[in-house]
Order: sequence, then C-alpha cells, then structure tokens
Amino acid sequence: MSSASTLSSICFEQGCWFKGERKIRVTDKVVKRPSSMSFRVSATSSASKDIRIGLLGASGYTGAEIVRLLANHPHFGVTLMTADRKAGQSMDSVFPHLRAQKLPRLVSVKDADFSSVDAVFCCLPHGTTQEIIKGLPTTLKIVDLSADFRLRDISEYEEWYGQPHQAVELQKEVVYGLTELLRDDIKKARLVANPGCYPTSVQLPLVPLLKENLIKHENIIIDAKSGVSGAGRGAKEANLYSEIAEGISSYGVTRHRHVPEIEQGLSDVAQSKVTVSFTPHLMPMIRGMQSTIYVEMAPGVKTEDLYQQLRSSYEDEEFVKVLEEGVVPRTHNVRGSNYCFMNVFPDRIPGRAIIISVIDNLVKGASGQALQNLNIMMGLPETMGLLHQPLFP
Amino acid sequence: MSSASTLSSICFEQGCWFKGERKIRVTDKVVKRPSSMSFRVSATSSASKDIRIGLLGASGYTGAEIVRLLANHPHFGVTLMTADRKAGQSMDSVFPHLRAQKLPRLVSVKDADFSSVDAVFCCLPHGTTQEIIKGLPTTLKIVDLSADFRLRDISEYEEWYGQPHQAVELQKEVVYGLTELLRDDIKKARLVANPGCYPTSVQLPLVPLLKENLIKHENIIIDAKSGVSGAGRGAKEANLYSEIAEGISSYGVTRHRHVPEIEQGLSDVAQSKVTVSFTPHLMPMIRGMQSTIYVEMAPGVKTEDLYQQLRSSYEDEEFVKVLEEGVVPRTHNVRGSNYCFMNVFPDRIPGRAIIISVIDNLVKGASGQALQNLNIMMGLPETMGLLHQPLFP
Amino acid sequence: MSSASTLSSICFEQGCWFKGERKIRVTDKVVKRPSSMSFRVSATSSASKDIRIGLLGASGYTGAEIVRLLANHPHFGVTLMTADRKAGQSMDSVFPHLRAQKLPRLVSVKDADFSSVDAVFCCLPHGTTQEIIKGLPTTLKIVDLSADFRLRDISEYEEWYGQPHQAVELQKEVVYGLTELLRDDIKKARLVANPGCYPTSVQLPLVPLLKENLIKHENIIIDAKSGVSGAGRGAKEANLYSEIAEGISSYGVTRHRHVPEIEQGLSDVAQSKVTVSFTPHLMPMIRGMQSTIYVEMAPGVKTEDLYQQLRSSYEDEEFVKVLEEGVVPRTHNVRGSNYCFMNVFPDRIPGRAIIISVIDNLVKGASGQALQNLNIMMGLPETMGLLHQPLFP
Amino acid sequence: MSSASTLSSICFEQGCWFKGERKIRVTDKVVKRPSSMSFRVSATSSASKDIRIGLLGASGYTGAEIVRLLANHPHFGVTLMTADRKAGQSMDSVFPHLRAQKLPRLVSVKDADFSSVDAVFCCLPHGTTQEIIKGLPTTLKIVDLSADFRLRDISEYEEWYGQPHQAVELQKEVVYGLTELLRDDIKKARLVANPGCYPTSVQLPLVPLLKENLIKHENIIIDAKSGVSGAGRGAKEANLYSEIAEGISSYGVTRHRHVPEIEQGLSDVAQSKVTVSFTPHLMPMIRGMQSTIYVEMAPGVKTEDLYQQLRSSYEDEEFVKVLEEGVVPRTHNVRGSNYCFMNVFPDRIPGRAIIISVIDNLVKGASGQALQNLNIMMGLPETMGLLHQPLFP
Repeated sequence: MSSASTLSSICFEQGCWFKGERKIRVTDKVVKRPSSMSFRVSATSSASKDIRIGLLGASGYTGAEIVRLLANHPHFGVTLMTADRKAGQSMDSVFPHLRAQKLPRLVSVKDADFSSVDAVFCCLPHGTTQEIIKGLPTTLKIVDLSADFRLRDISEYEEWYGQPHQAVELQKEVVYGLTELLRDDIKKARLVANPGCYPTSVQLPLVPLLKENLIKHENIIIDAKSGVSGAGRGAKEANLYSEIAEGISSYGVTRHRHVPEIEQGLSDVAQSKVTVSFTPHLMPMIRGMQSTIYVEMAPGVKTEDLYQQLRSSYEDEEFVKVLEEGVVPRTHNVRGSNYCFMNVFPDRIPGRAIIISVIDNLVKGASGQALQNLNIMMGLPETMGLLHQPLFP
Repeated sequence: MSSASTLSSICFEQGCWFKGERKIRVTDKVVKRPSSMSFRVSATSSASKDIRIGLLGASGYTGAEIVRLLANHPHFGVTLMTADRKAGQSMDSVFPHLRAQKLPRLVSVKDADFSSVDAVFCCLPHGTTQEIIKGLPTTLKIVDLSADFRLRDISEYEEWYGQPHQAVELQKEVVYGLTELLRDDIKKARLVANPGCYPTSVQLPLVPLLKENLIKHENIIIDAKSGVSGAGRGAKEANLYSEIAEGISSYGVTRHRHVPEIEQGLSDVAQSKVTVSFTPHLMPMIRGMQSTIYVEMAPGVKTEDLYQQLRSSYEDEEFVKVLEEGVVPRTHNVRGSNYCFMNVFPDRIPGRAIIISVIDNLVKGASGQALQNLNIMMGLPETMGLLHQPLFP
Repeated sequence: MSSASTLSSICFEQGCWFKGERKIRVTDKVVKRPSSMSFRVSATSSASKDIRIGLLGASGYTGAEIVRLLANHPHFGVTLMTADRKAGQSMDSVFPHLRAQKLPRLVSVKDADFSSVDAVFCCLPHGTTQEIIKGLPTTLKIVDLSADFRLRDISEYEEWYGQPHQAVELQKEVVYGLTELLRDDIKKARLVANPGCYPTSVQLPLVPLLKENLIKHENIIIDAKSGVSGAGRGAKEANLYSEIAEGISSYGVTRHRHVPEIEQGLSDVAQSKVTVSFTPHLMPMIRGMQSTIYVEMAPGVKTEDLYQQLRSSYEDEEFVKVLEEGVVPRTHNVRGSNYCFMNVFPDRIPGRAIIISVIDNLVKGASGQALQNLNIMMGLPETMGLLHQPLFP
Repeated sequence: MSSASTLSSICFEQGCWFKGERKIRVTDKVVKRPSSMSFRVSATSSASKDIRIGLLGASGYTGAEIVRLLANHPHFGVTLMTADRKAGQSMDSVFPHLRAQKLPRLVSVKDADFSSVDAVFCCLPHGTTQEIIKGLPTTLKIVDLSADFRLRDISEYEEWYGQPHQAVELQKEVVYGLTELLRDDIKKARLVANPGCYPTSVQLPLVPLLKENLIKHENIIIDAKSGVSGAGRGAKEANLYSEIAEGISSYGVTRHRHVPEIEQGLSDVAQSKVTVSFTPHLMPMIRGMQSTIYVEMAPGVKTEDLYQQLRSSYEDEEFVKVLEEGVVPRTHNVRGSNYCFMNVFPDRIPGRAIIISVIDNLVKGASGQALQNLNIMMGLPETMGLLHQPLFP
C-alpha cells in the first residue's frame, strides 16, 4: 500500500491521467505494436495499481460511478467486484459504458475473497449492508454508501428503517463522512458512513451557519429537488421514462428517510434538537440535486453575514464553491463532478434568507464523496481522481 | 351573438366536438363528397361559428394555445389573428400543429379590423398591451393575458415594470380573472385581466384559507417550479434545449414580477398587507407548474382543517380538485388540461403545513383560464371547449 | 344502440364536447346545484351515454388513452373496465389524470359481465388476447389492439411470436384496421385487428405508392424512431428515465415483430412478396413516431409523382396530411392527436426518394385509430371524439 | 515545448490528473496552507503548464469543451482565449461550470497576442475562420474545428457555403484530422482541419470497408441522428427547449453541409466518386450522435466479413471499439467521452448490412478529436487528457 511519500515514483509506474509511459516500459506490449503507436495507450488496467479496491454492489448506479471515477485514479485499482444477481457476468455487459476498462468479473458477495483487497466501497442496499460489513476483515478500510451506519442513534434507525440494527458494535466506531466538515476524523477512521445526497447538500451550507449562531434553529424549511438516478437502477413503474419526463412531483413529504440524518447533523452543531421541514421533489433529469433552504436569521444578522461566513468557511476548499453575490447555482454546472456550488440570497420577508446549494447526487452526493473519503483514509491527496470538470452542456 | 338559451339549436348548426351532422345538412358541402364520406368531417372551420373572436399576438405560445382550445369550441370562431412580425403568413407556417384548422391569415395589429369581431383575447407582451387595448372599440369583450392590468395599484406597476402605466382609466374597470374566486364579477366584466400562472397556482389554495383565518399572514413561503414554455417563444440562449435539459435552477429569486400580483390577491382577502417569500425555479419540462407552499397555521388549527376547507371550497368546481388525503398532486396529471390539483400535508414542524398545487401553466395558468373567463363573460357554460382530459403519459 | 340517423337528438341528451345543455334539461341534476352553477358542468359521466363500451386491459397506456379520448365522445360510455392485477381499484388510483371522469371500478376479466356492453376495446398483451376474445359473445363489436389477429398467416404468427395461434377460426373473419385504406371492410367488420404503430406509419405512405407502381418492391429501407410509451407501462430497467433520457439506440435490429405485419401489408398491395429492411430506434421522448423511408422509384418516376400521388390519395382525409413541398413533418406537431403528417423528398442519389411520416404512437398508432375504427363499425362519423388538436409546445 | 522524451520529468512539475505532488514541491504554495491541507490541491492553473494554448472562439460549446478537457491535460495550458462578443468577461461568467479553473480573461481576437502561445484551437464559425487563420504566425500549430478547411476542392466549398474561399494557399497544406485513419499525416501537420461530427461517425466505419472493397460504392444510405448541442449556443427559436423536447425531426434532408465532406472522404478511399444519401435528424438530447448506415455488400461478402474487417482495423485503438456481435451501440455509453462504439448487423434483405456507429458529437465529433490531433502534432501520447470515462447514467 502506498503512502504519500512514495507518490512520485508510483506516478511513473502506474500511469497518470494521460498514460503512455507504461507502454514505453512494459516491453512485452511494446513489441506487439508498430513504432508509431508507442505513445498511445491501452485501456485502464485496474490490476496494475498498487492499492487494491473491492467494490460491493457493483451493478447499481453508485457502484458504476465508483468505477468511472477510479478509471483515472493513479493508485486505486478495482480487483474485486460483487453483484449477487449478476454474478458471473462481466461488468461491461451490465454497464457497457465501462467497457474500455479491464475489470474483474462480477462475483457473488459470498464468494468474494477479501484477503486480496486493501479497501472496500460498499454500495449495497440498507439492511443487508450491516450484516456484510460485520463479516469483513477488520484490517480493511471501508466506505459504506448505504444508510446503515449514518444514524448514531440505533433506535432512530429502527424507527425510520423498520428493523433493528444488526451491527450495533460497529456503529460506535463509525465516522460520518461529510468530508469538508469532518476531515480530521475521517483521516483516522476505518469505517466511514458516507452521507446521503440530500444531507450533503443541506449540511454543507447550514452547518457553518448554525455553528456561528447566524441562523435560528427553528423553522428551517428545506425544499429539495433531485434527479432520478438517486432512485437507483431497480425497475419500478414510477421511475419509467414515460412517468418521469415532462413533469415533477413531491414524494415522501415529511417522511423521507434522509430527515433523521439531516436533523442529527444539524442538532449536533446547534447543540439542541433541530426539527426541519423537508420536502423532496423528483425532477425529470438524471443527475443533479438542489436544496432551496429558507431560514430565519438570528437577531441583528444580515444576509451579507451569512454570505461572508460561507465564503470564509470554504475559501480553501476545492470542491465547495460559494458563488459571487447574486449568482444563482445551477445543477447543470456541477453535473458529473464532485463540486458543490452554493449561494445566499435576501428574502422579501425581513429577517429571512434563502440558501441554495447544488451538487451531482451521484458524485458529491455519493460516489465522489466516497472516493474523497477513501483518499483521506489512505493518506492520499483528497482530490485524487476527482478533478473531472463538470459536463456542460 | 349567442346567449345560453339558444345553445341547443346552435349545436346543430355549428358543429359539436364530433362534427358530422353538419355534413349531412349543409347540402352544398355534401355534394362535393362521395357518399362513403358523408359521415366524416373536414377540418374545423372557424368562420362558421357564431361568436367571432379576435386573437392579438397569435404567434406566441399562449396565442397558439387559445387556437388549440377553440378548435373544439362550438361558438367561438377565430376570425382575426394578429402577429406583427409574422404578418402576411399563414398560422400553420408559424405553428404547423394547427394546420388542420382553417384560420385567417396573420395581420399586423395596426391593420386589424375590429368591427368584425365580438370578443378579443390579447396575448401581447406587457407594455404594448395597454396602448393597444386602450384603442379597441368599447363594445368588445376583452380578456388580456398580459400583466398590464393585473395590478390595481398603478405605482406598483411602475415599480415592478419600470414604466408608467399608459391606461390608468381602463385599470379602474378591469376585473381580475381568477375564475373560481371571482366568477360573479367576471360575469359582468368587459375587460378581464387574466391572472399570471404562478399567481393562479398560489391563490387558488391560499385564498380560501386566508379568508377563513386558518393560516397566518406571516412567513408564507412559496417554492414554485415551472416548465419552460412560460418563458415564451422568444429566442434566448438561456432557454435553449442544451441549457435547460438535465438541470434545474432558481431564477428571479425574490424579484419575480408575479410577486406583487400574488401579494395583492392575498392582501385583499387577508385585509392586511401580506408579504410572501417567493422563489421560482425553472424545470426541464415544457409545461407544468407546481407551487409548494409552506405555511404557519393559526393557533389551534390542524392540517385536517385546512384540508376540509379546501374540499368544501372547491367541491362543486370542475377544474379545481382537492385530492384524497395523502395523494401527491403531480404536474403530469394535469398536462394539457385546465385542471388544478391540490392537497395539504402535515409538516414535521408542529403548527406548520405544506400545500401543493399543480397546473398546466399554458392552460389553467394562461389560455385555458382565459377561455373559461370569456365563456362566463359571454353567458356560456364556463367549461365549454375546456373539457380535454390531461395528456398522460 | 344508436345509428347515425338518430345522432341529432342524441347530441342533446348525451352532452357534446362543451356539455352544459344537459344540465339545463336533465331536471333531477339541476335541482341539486345552486343556480349560479347551472351552466357549468360536472365531470363526464360515462354511464349516461348510449353505447356501452367495455375496455379490457385498462391499466396500460393504450387503455388509459382510450379512456382519455372517450371522455369527449358523445356516444361511447365506458361501463366495464378490466385489469387483472389492479382488480378492485378505482381507475383514478391507477391513472390519476383521469380522475375528473366517473368511471366503473376495475374488475378482473374473468369477473366481467359482457352482457352489459355493446362493444369492446381489447388492450391486452398478445397471447392471452386470443383466448379471451374467443370467449366473448359474438354479438359484440371488438377492436383488438394487440398483435394477435394482425397476421393472416397463422404460421407466420407462430414463427414471430413463438407459440401456436389459439383462435384460428376467428382469424378468418378479422378485418385489418388501417382505417384510411380499408374503410369499407371495417364498416362491415365485427372484429378488427388494430394495426401496430410502426406498420401504420409505414403503410400509410407506402401503400398508395406501391399500388400505383411508383416505387420498386426491392430495397425498401425503413429507419423508424419511436417514443418510449410504445414499450408500455411494465417496469423494465431498460425503460427507466435514467436509461432512456439523453441518448438514443436501435433495438430489435431486423427482428422487430412489426416486420411481418409491414411486409404483409406491402406484399398485398404489391401482389408479390416484399421484404423490407426495418430498424427501429428508441428515442428519449414519451410519444411520437417517425418513419424515414428510403425507396427506389420505378423507372421514369420522379419525386414529384410520388408527392402528387400521396396528395391525391389523402386529399379528403381528416387525419392524414401531406405537407406542402419541402416542409418537414415533425412528431411535435401531431403529439396527442390522431393525425399522420407525411412528405416526400428527393434524394441525392438519382432515382431514389425519401419519405417521412410522423404519428403519435398512442393515438393514430394505437388508441386513436382504434376509436376511429369503432366509430365506423358503429355507423358513426369516424372523427367523432378524435378532433383534439395536437398539443404543442 | 515538450517532447515525448521529457514526459517523465514534466509529470512532476505540471501536475497529473490527481495533482498534489506539486503542492509538496512548490514551496511557496505549501507555506500558505495549514499542514492538514498539504495533500489537497487547488484548482487547475493553466498558466503553469509548459505548452501554451490559444483558444479562439471560447464562448461556444466546442470552445468550452476544449477547456473542460484541458483541465486534466498535464502539458496544455490555456493562456489565451478569445470571444469577440464577450471580450472583457471572465470565462466563468460565460460558462460557470468552468469556474474551478484559473483561466485568462476573454479578449477580442483582434487584441490577441499570438506570440505567447505555442498552439491554437480555432472554434470560430466558418467563413470568418479562413481570414483569421491566414493571419496567424506560421510557427503555430493549429487545429481548426470549423468547416473552412475540410473540403480540398475550393469550388465545392463555394457551392455549399455560398462564398468563395479566402485562403486557397492554406488549403493546400491542410491535413484532414480523422485521427485513426490519417495519424501519420497529422503527425507532420501544422494545420489540421478537424472533421465534422457526422463525417467522423460515418467515415470511421465506412472507410475500412470501402478500402477493402467489402461494400458497394452505390446506394450508401446514412440515417443520422444528433443531439442539439451540435447546433451551437446561438439563440434560435428552433433550438429552444420547448421546440426540441419530446419530439424529433429531420432537417436539411439531402442538403446538409456535411455531405460533401463525407463524400470526399469516401470517394478518396473508393477511388471513384461516391454519392451518398444522408438524412440528419435532430434528437431531444444534448449530446450524442448515431449514424445508422445501410449498405449493399460486394458480391460474395457476408456481414461477418464486414465485422471482422472492422475488428481488425480498430483492434489497437483506444477510442474506437467494435462491440461484441449482436450488441447494439448506444449513445448513452459514449456520453462525455472520446469513444466511438460501432457494430455491424445483418439485414433482412439478402446482400445488405446495417452499420451503427455512435459518438459524443462534442468530444470525438469535435473538441476531443481536436485534442487527440494536437497531442499527435506535439509529439505527445494521443490519449493524453482524453481518458475520461463516459458519463452514465
């Protein structure tokens, strides 16, 4: 396993973003090609990277997104992929867009050999996740993208997910992976609970404001909008193109399972129980998430104060950008990337402000933040493999 | 001009939805066709209907929508259509989907002969509308779809539209055309200011609740979402497919011109100045509008009280439907129709409620409500020509 | 049951498109409403119409589309609706956009009482359809929207659908329901096999050209594009929004089941076996279908000849429009309507021509044509209930 | 300027995909950051890369796409950006999705200082391009994305573009930049005419087949489908969301300006004049292009022969993938990437075959291929900066 101090040499051997040198060196391949080809490259070969990654639940959208991001990561190579219902298939038969990569064949999780991996991304559904993570070797670093370890309060988990928690001991050591706000804890973690997409888009703007007592704890109203990919790849009538395109609707009004996660995070920083109004809406778009948040400012506080706080909180961050005053964040402008754009606006009603944050739900809202976390856990630069620019138009 | 009492005979002469009898009776047409065709029908001929309609600004989306709706109206026939920049063209060269109808050629508004029409729909941009309506014969019934006559307070118009009002006298006689709430006034009106789309979707649920003092006047927060057709057919970079598809964004945060119209309506019924928080969002869909409204209930009031009030307010209405408890209104389910679906939901925060209303912005939010109003002004059943069912999927 | 000669009186009693008179006349209803409501109308009540329609398979898109269209049909009232998996539910719980109509509760097809209906639309999947239609009373008029009775050659059915035909006797009396081309046969039919969407869009332009020997029988190349609603409402991963939006793809290359239907129709008129190249493509849109057809003209024939033939073939048709020379048909312009727009273009390669036709796959490609056919079978004007204008934008 | 032999050292200094090491080494930056940040990175700074790129026409979609791709290129740094109508603005005010990068301010092309750049991407409209490129220093390497230098035959240019060519001398030295087929010429070129999107998607599959005489020269029928971004960012009514979404249409039937480019390429390899049938269609999607190509095989040739030829032609290519037999290429699977996926299918008509190729029109069809070409012209591995994986879903 690599440490940061060996990065420079690794860069040569493992291939950077552009790849090519590898071809020059790996003699047996060079001879097969005409000399004019010697600087071109073959597809990414995960096997030759130095940190071996296991990916559990590879046949869903977040799993595929992990693979997409790792294609250009110089150290993380996927050597194990599980997908119970697709076991035995190749990944490109499940996700043809990933065919340029050389990837291991899908296996059932029960057949997985965890001795050959250094770290794991877990993209399994909640419920089953607990059991499986409980059974993993404790030497593994794990980032779990499910909801299973996000709620510290086990009884709250049971209330919202309708089943008792099966890995109570593990819950105690979990670190919540909201990277920009909990980076130091993540560095030391073995098991990180990767935040939900809505909680990420809500906590990034609200936590610094609550911490500085700039907004009131009461009457925080969150009107959130999400693309459909957040619902996953499962075949459901409600997510068919003909049901989603050209229309919008709310869902899970006040009962969405991300509510307790949001309230846990806000309550922690507010140091008192915060209850929010949270209404998610399903949008006719694949990726993207916007939270429009209506808040009451603390007495004497102005919108400008909120703005300055967010600017200073995030001025050194690569992935969180507070836009210029008056500029509206748009989900289009973060599509496919790990960025969160946000801004603050004055409300017509005196004493109130409107905060808007946007992310790509599959990247900063899921797989991108997971990679950001594992980078940190492994002592690598946290932006490694994540500097794709947004895809627009 | 027809009155309701003569409807029965008119039905035969003017052709109903299905048409056909006309062919049997109107001898000069029958002879031109082979006998096997005698029960089929030709395209709608506007000229043969008894109430002659002028349509000003026919080359925009609301103008086209009026024409679409009138195709199946038994009495309103379009005999005059203006479109300054397209003058001289046929309507089907501008809107090929309307080619099955026989329509008059487009003329410039300055060349229009208003002596040949009984009523007018005015679909012109704000600003120019005032001048043109001021010059129309006072014998005409007029429904104006622009914003020019919606604000009673002339100074407020000037503030939001950046120019002094040019038809102050007319403003005094205008009736605001929110049909379900002001039906009796509309019946007697000569000039109706058709409501904006956002104000329609907001006032329909809020007015009955404010009238009965079930919600507080303060802190009404409206998070509104609209399809792109509301921005009209003008060529703007911001409304290109590549800029709109697969993403969402807020616009005009706190500064949208529908704000004073909404506040005027709510203040009237609340009998005190109401200031709302209003944030519109642009959605990647052509038609459809949802207002998600966050309110504080009056002391002792429960969500169920709001629900019952709305049910009883609208129980006899064809076009406003309060859904069963817990059923979420979706814009998909009103697309292409004049319906408004709404519902009320309890909020997690005690004392608050969430109200959702959906309309098609081009129908109930514009041309459909305009037709509903003109039906009333002409003494016809208000649903005439408007009972298209929503287009789904 | 009504005949054409009694239409005039029925119009009064059953309510036309605009409805309203009924309220004036039907005394028992008027008294229930306040006087101010007397000209408005309630939702469509299917029960009071004179021709009783049974709808088998009401929970799919074509079933819902039949209901949408019948809402404004003056004679056809739905009195029986079946949907095996949704039996016991109300239609508006399955399709909320239809809630304004008063409709019978869904029942299982085995519990259906066919003695109470005059005619049936059958929207069941192929395979099961045969058995069910075989068991229906022979007094019923039936329009079948499945593929089960479209292929005259039973062995061809077995080859393409992988199972022997179960209703060979019925197959002999079936009339193929391509309305504009087989109207006289349809008039006398008891059982009509409604054409598939692709076959409709292909045969309407090609049959008149083959009949007049203007194009060669060989090398007819059909590149067809369809919206997703054609795939139905079944939950399939491949039809999820996230899989369909923002991309296109071919499917069933050369093996689509509409091929034998197309070839049957073209061979009939060509009086020799025609083999076509047919490649369907799935488009990110709900409704709409375009066939771009590449043909070789017969010796000496010019594009203009093709154009004139199509113009004259369809000059008296309400629903088939040959556009002005050079005007490109667009699916946008027929959305939600029963129209087929078509045109002919010269090819760069001498002797070849390009034909484009567009329809709404759910209307002219399915439920609209089905209604057009039943109108004819019942002696009604064929456009009855079908003159909705296209929904654009 | 770098040569390939110095790549290894450059990698350290300029920052690879993951960046980070640079921070460790560049002492003056490290001291500004707290130690916990030392492995994270700042936004891409174009200025510090060793090959200085000028980008002409930066405010269009292809310009923005160049910038997106270069963000992760280790050697190409954008130091000059022109956009006449946006001169003086920052790039992130024009394209907010690029805000994470440090980019030079936009200038007018007449104010551009070309002495400070090593190579130029020219993304200007046809017509003006010729004049501007004629005036550039001859020491610059240039990739031109316009159509101005694609047609060798000046008279053909005049015929299709309606104006005489203004840079006839330059035309003689131009190399046509279809990378996989003309790599050796591109290596030596100073000025490369980057192919059009349609011509790329058509020539990649057809050139190898024509070269080996596997298909006939006659009756090549190309039914092409494109996303809307190909039409650029100019504000046109026809490209508004409301005009494009939920429908498809052909455009420029037989008269599209990419026809002569396609025919030039095919004629070259066929060694005789090839005339194609070419019908482009506009799809409701932002990116993506599919060409469905209908060909007649040479006598005795089978579909399998075509397939094997394409497999062997492209077996060593990173960006051109011939899929497994029977697997349909989908534009979804190349979105945002430089890949071309293709496949061959048997036709129902004996002796014919169907070829399908898909690309992202803005990447392999424009900016990606341009970068691929400049990499080659500068002696770099051609995949450098281009190994983004496709964005799906």
